[in-house]
Amino acid sequence: MSSAIQRLQNQLFELHSNKLFEFTVIFIIVFSALVTGAKTYEINTTLDNAVHWLDWFITLFFLFEVSIRIIAEPRTLDFFKKGWNVFDFIIVAASLVPVDGNETVLLARLLRIFRVLRLVSVIPELRILINSLLKALPRMGYIALLMFIIFYIYAAIGSFMFEAINHKLWANISIAMLTLFRVATFEDWTDVMYETMEVYPLSWIFYLTFIFLTAFVFLNMMIGVVLDAMQREQNQSEQERDDTEAEEVHSIKAEISEVNAKLDRLHTLLEQQTAQQTQKP
Amino acid sequence: MSSAIQRLQNQLFELHSNKLFEFTVIFIIVFSALVTGAKTYEINTTLDNAVHWLDWFITLFFLFEVSIRIIAEPRTLDFFKKGWNVFDFIIVAASLVPVDGNETVLLARLLRIFRVLRLVSVIPELRILINSLLKALPRMGYIALLMFIIFYIYAAIGSFMFEAINHKLWANISIAMLTLFRVATFEDWTDVMYETMEVYPLSWIFYLTFIFLTAFVFLNMMIGVVLDAMQREQNQSEQERDDTEAEEVHSIKAEISEVNAKLDRLHTLLEQQTAQQTQKP
Amino acid sequence: MSSAIQRLQNQLFELHSNKLFEFTVIFIIVFSALVTGAKTYEINTTLDNAVHWLDWFITLFFLFEVSIRIIAEPRTLDFFKKGWNVFDFIIVAASLVPVDGNETVLLARLLRIFRVLRLVSVIPELRILINSLLKALPRMGYIALLMFIIFYIYAAIGSFMFEAINHKLWANISIAMLTLFRVATFEDWTDVMYETMEVYPLSWIFYLTFIFLTAFVFLNMMIGVVLDAMQREQNQSEQERDDTEAEEVHSIKAEISEVNAKLDRLHTLLEQQTAQQTQKP
Amino acid sequence: MSSAIQRLQNQLFELHSNKLFEFTVIFIIVFSALVTGAKTYEINTTLDNAVHWLDWFITLFFLFEVSIRIIAEPRTLDFFKKGWNVFDFIIVAASLVPVDGNETVLLARLLRIFRVLRLVSVIPELRILINSLLKALPRMGYIALLMFIIFYIYAAIGSFMFEAINHKLWANISIAMLTLFRVATFEDWTDVMYETMEVYPLSWIFYLTFIFLTAFVFLNMMIGVVLDAMQREQNQSEQERDDTEAEEVHSIKAEISEVNAKLDRLHTLLEQQTAQQTQKP
Repeated sequence: MSSAIQRLQNQLFELHSNKLFEFTVIFIIVFSALVTGAKTYEINTTLDNAVHWLDWFITLFFLFEVSIRIIAEPRTLDFFKKGWNVFDFIIVAASLVPVDGNETVLLARLLRIFRVLRLVSVIPELRILINSLLKALPRMGYIALLMFIIFYIYAAIGSFMFEAINHKLWANISIAMLTLFRVATFEDWTDVMYETMEVYPLSWIFYLTFIFLTAFVFLNMMIGVVLDAMQREQNQSEQERDDTEAEEVHSIKAEISEVNAKLDRLHTLLEQQTAQQTQKP
Repeated sequence: MSSAIQRLQNQLFELHSNKLFEFTVIFIIVFSALVTGAKTYEINTTLDNAVHWLDWFITLFFLFEVSIRIIAEPRTLDFFKKGWNVFDFIIVAASLVPVDGNETVLLARLLRIFRVLRLVSVIPELRILINSLLKALPRMGYIALLMFIIFYIYAAIGSFMFEAINHKLWANISIAMLTLFRVATFEDWTDVMYETMEVYPLSWIFYLTFIFLTAFVFLNMMIGVVLDAMQREQNQSEQERDDTEAEEVHSIKAEISEVNAKLDRLHTLLEQQTAQQTQKP
Repeated sequence: MSSAIQRLQNQLFELHSNKLFEFTVIFIIVFSALVTGAKTYEINTTLDNAVHWLDWFITLFFLFEVSIRIIAEPRTLDFFKKGWNVFDFIIVAASLVPVDGNETVLLARLLRIFRVLRLVSVIPELRILINSLLKALPRMGYIALLMFIIFYIYAAIGSFMFEAINHKLWANISIAMLTLFRVATFEDWTDVMYETMEVYPLSWIFYLTFIFLTAFVFLNMMIGVVLDAMQREQNQSEQERDDTEAEEVHSIKAEISEVNAKLDRLHTLLEQQTAQQTQKP
Repeated sequence: MSSAIQRLQNQLFELHSNKLFEFTVIFIIVFSALVTGAKTYEINTTLDNAVHWLDWFITLFFLFEVSIRIIAEPRTLDFFKKGWNVFDFIIVAASLVPVDGNETVLLARLLRIFRVLRLVSVIPELRILINSLLKALPRMGYIALLMFIIFYIYAAIGSFMFEAINHKLWANISIAMLTLFRVATFEDWTDVMYETMEVYPLSWIFYLTFIFLTAFVFLNMMIGVVLDAMQREQNQSEQERDDTEAEEVHSIKAEISEVNAKLDRLHTLLEQQTAQQTQKP
């Protein structure tokens, strides 16, 4: 029976890898998400119903697939050791909770949000993308800390200097950091600057150095992350290339050593011959 | 007669590749587009007329060129198998519809739009550019899906939490997604935030995490696409380089093997000699 | 006498390459530019005078240097064959026109603008930067054309559809292109969109596709230019590396061929010996 | 006793490298910074006290660690020769100044700002990041100068042309440069443009060329810095790779030369033999 389940799992995996199947599922999930999201537009009820039933079909398909994958595992608990398996299980479990068109309950609405995450279950490329994002997190974390230091120092100076000018923007360090984030996104930052420049005409130095610093750090962050990712990819491909090359070069070296040894033996042979000939007569 | 057409086609191709001809055609198309676009400015009528006639000359030239290319094809229908041929044909056909200076008909105005696409027919570099854009589409599609998931989840939370605060911005998930796109482009996003912060003082967490997530994904998207494109280019050039190198190394290996074999024969010869000499006396 | 000028030119070139001298000149030019630019701030008149005299000293130094370079040239007209020489000459000539602190003449004010360009004469790194910018121009030109096509098509549709809604923004194709450029820079673009959405509720599709297209093309432009620049640099460095490697491999190949030939000769010798020995007795 | 201090220093370094310790210290510093920054929010006093004491513990730990490092140095003054050591010493000294919760003194508030810089003392990755930022400074400086030239020329033209239209924005070159920086960040730049377009309808050319130029230079700046950083990293890794490869190839070359020399000796031997044999009988 175990092999029957194995076969079923393989068939499901093949169906899963089918591009047409994938696109159909993506289309239904996205369309279903948009339909539930846009209740205000008048939508053809036949179409709405069709989407609704297709959505339920996908939910059942996922339930079936996850069940098979759990059964196929020799030990059931091993299934939950992989992060993505746990993710799939939660998504399937959450999408089983029925969601009516006009529900108002909080939980049901939050569960509806989770349903769009089934896209990650369907598309392997999205998992690769998310994995690579997770890999970039540590480096991003350090850059975030550097940004935090810059924001904190400028916020401290800002809240100390400009509190009297506009209490709403510079009341304390936290609020000043939010204001500085607004300046960093260039959102009406000149309004903030012109206001303080009326009291301190040189305060443009504060804003310009801040913008240069954050842009400079951000730029280097981008470069750092690109370089890091590239380095890793290149090292891998170069490793492979070097391995083949090193193999070739090594075989050449081995053969030359062999040639060398043979020449030594030839030399010994010839010397013996010469010695014999000179002794003989 | 077929060879005469072939010769004509070659001559047209050469004229086409001529940089001076290319720049003249680009200049006339762009200038003609600007002149038709900027009727409000007072333009010298002689100049206007000249551009008008030059524009007609280009249209006729394209008609002539496409006709020759269709005739040159052994089977006429094969011409329409290449995407760019179909594109050229439609552009030429559309630009033949006469467009007067003061037309008001809808179709005529839409056709005038198409005329600027003749630039793509003239400039081979633009086709290369568009081809490379089309190649990047699948990867972009997956990133768009990831973005869609992030937008959808935040829009669902946003429309659920902030609907009562500003119905215009958070009425339903679709409208909330449009509002979030506005936040992602930093367009008056603080106005949106300050409004909700009056009711939920911690709602800045919602906006900041959203901005960080989209910026983070966007950043990685850019990096991913750069890496992808680079990988492809490098693989190609390295393949070529490796081929030449591998050839060299192989010839060295072959020659060393030859050396080795010759040494073996020499050794046998010498041993035979030695054996003869020791037997002889 | 020609060698004396040559020596003088070398000494000037050395002085020019001196980092301390470079920084002093940069500081004086920038400071002088800022001082002339910021007449409204109360500046210490002694400092102002000092900067004024240092500025004149630099002008005279440049005059002296360019004169020496022109005299050093065997044929005076050859000097003007290099673009940067002509640039230097014009800058020096323009900076000789006296500019008073309170001049109001148009020409004098425009000439003052040119004086800051002397920075390019002083800093060789800036010339390298500008040269590399000029090299990137052709590729940028083609991308600008692609952008123009996208803007033109959207502007044509926009001016046709939205002219009645806001005549100031969509009066004709040129004005619509300016409005779309504003949308592309995210400058109050939602105001433009919300206005048209009141008449055409689906017009957000127009803006979002436009933003995606321009961002997509811009992104690829950036990538394309990066790849192009990298390709060129890498090809150069790899060429050099390959040259050294190829040399090494070639020397190995040559030596092995020599070994091979020697073995052939040895073989012939041994066979002759064996033949002699078998014939002899 | 010196070795006991050495051992203590090693133990401290090990504790320093401990990830759990690092995260705890980062968490306490950041949390403490946020708590002091956000006095307005009601925070659990027990938590506040705990953070306060942990903060003091970290300050004492840093004091202890720096003291050990100074004592461990054979000559005390050598400690201050490294930039990072001086940085650590100042941070520790500054964080020793007591900061009360409700202080109003200027110096005390400024010292509180410095305390967040202890993060750089804890996290070695931040030092690497800052070092790489410092390395990129010279190149950035030259690009800043190029930007300055562009801004200055446009500001000069702008202040000359538009001064009469809006004295607040274009009063003199300095103020015009600030206005242009605002245009470069796309902050309400259309308001600036529409205002001047009423007097000079073609002034959009001024703004668009300026935006294209700054974006173009900025883009190339980014590319330049990326290429520069990549070049340096690649050269390093390629140097290493080339070294190993060159070693291999050299050993092959040496061995072949040996083979060649041996063959020459063999040849001489054989010729001598042949000569002997022909002379003998």
